Amino acid sequence: MDILKSLKWRYATKKFDSSKKITENQLNLLLEATNLAATSYGLQPFQILVVEDKAIREKLKAAAWNQTQVTDASQVIIFAAKTNLSVGDVDEFVERMSKIRKIPADSLAEYAGMMKNTIQTRTPEVLTQWAARQAYIALGFLLVSAATQEIDACPMEGFDPAVFDEILDLKSKGLTSVVMATIGYRAADDHYQQLAKVRKELKDIVTVI
Amino acid sequence: MDILKSLKWRYATKKFDSSKKITENQLNLLLEATNLAATSYGLQPFQILVVEDKAIREKLKAAAWNQTQVTDASQVIIFAAKTNLSVGDVDEFVERMSKIRKIPADSLAEYAGMMKNTIQTRTPEVLTQWAARQAYIALGFLLVSAATQEIDACPMEGFDPAVFDEILDLKSKGLTSVVMATIGYRAADDHYQQLAKVRKELKDIVTVI
Repeated sequence: MDILKSLKWRYATKKFDSSKKITENQLNLLLEATNLAATSYGLQPFQILVVEDKAIREKLKAAAWNQTQVTDASQVIIFAAKTNLSVGDVDEFVERMSKIRKIPADSLAEYAGMMKNTIQTRTPEVLTQWAARQAYIALGFLLVSAATQEIDACPMEGFDPAVFDEILDLKSKGLTSVVMATIGYRAADDHYQQLAKVRKELKDIVTVI
Repeated sequence: MDILKSLKWRYATKKFDSSKKITENQLNLLLEATNLAATSYGLQPFQILVVEDKAIREKLKAAAWNQTQVTDASQVIIFAAKTNLSVGDVDEFVERMSKIRKIPADSLAEYAGMMKNTIQTRTPEVLTQWAARQAYIALGFLLVSAATQEIDACPMEGFDPAVFDEILDLKSKGLTSVVMATIGYRAADDHYQQLAKVRKELKDIVTVI
């Protein structure tokens, strides 16, 4: 699997071909890949919003510096971190694990206790930051997976989370938008695809000890 | 490229086969893949430490709940976020971009100004959180890339960052450890590899609007 080729092929797409839609199957594959992301304890403390609706996307664009990807991409994928992570999430997780692995929930009591302790000893702010970081791992999974399928994407932080949260009614659901990726197909005339990738040399970012 | 197959193959490896080492070529491929991660503005505001040294790994293990992966894995990859992100990083980035893309640095002045404004209007704490999130995208790139090469990995947050920073002398370098991944090959008797993956159903994590 030539993963480097895929990663060199990808770039933060600035202009999407708005006439090209991702198929249902492809979208499902990307969401499944994103859902397979590793998260701390496996808690998956975020939600993923796939925005197709044109009117909502116009509103989101206005809160995202009018970046055209928000309306021209095939879909907008928004990662929203939980702002109310609680021991209830642990109970739900343990129940899921018990069901999927066909093991009694009781046998997971020690593991559950450790997770609950982590949650109970952190402030809501720290918990939300923690949840956001997990969403960023999932963003990484989405971007790499999309590249392997030659689906374009643009990860985007440049938006007003408070306005996004209002448009998407996230606050009432105990969520806050943290990052998004627009996905679809690059426009033929997006000149950014021609530009050389700008990265640090390995020697400047990696230290071997 | 059957990315879902790779992602289902991977799991948070709890026990590595300490007799198996990742080759130099494979390690380079993983580091290159990680270095190709998307980051905000392309700033790459973190460093990557590859720890091979046995004595240092023993110390790190003690600060990581004695999790055996730290000493048994082929390598320990630590992501350290910048704690002193400044306009100087923007200058360095613009210089790199100018060199790689063979364009005059002057033509990037507006872009540089926007990035500098972002940095100057954020507190050091917010900047460090921001840098940490970018490192988590890179962690995602590392985990997925490793899976495509059938290299095992375990992402790990369970360590004391302050002690890690001391052992690795990160504070003086304007860095703080945020997350790590141990990489190598699963032990044949790591029973976790047999367990079904626990994930939310797509309908419980994804909302299409």
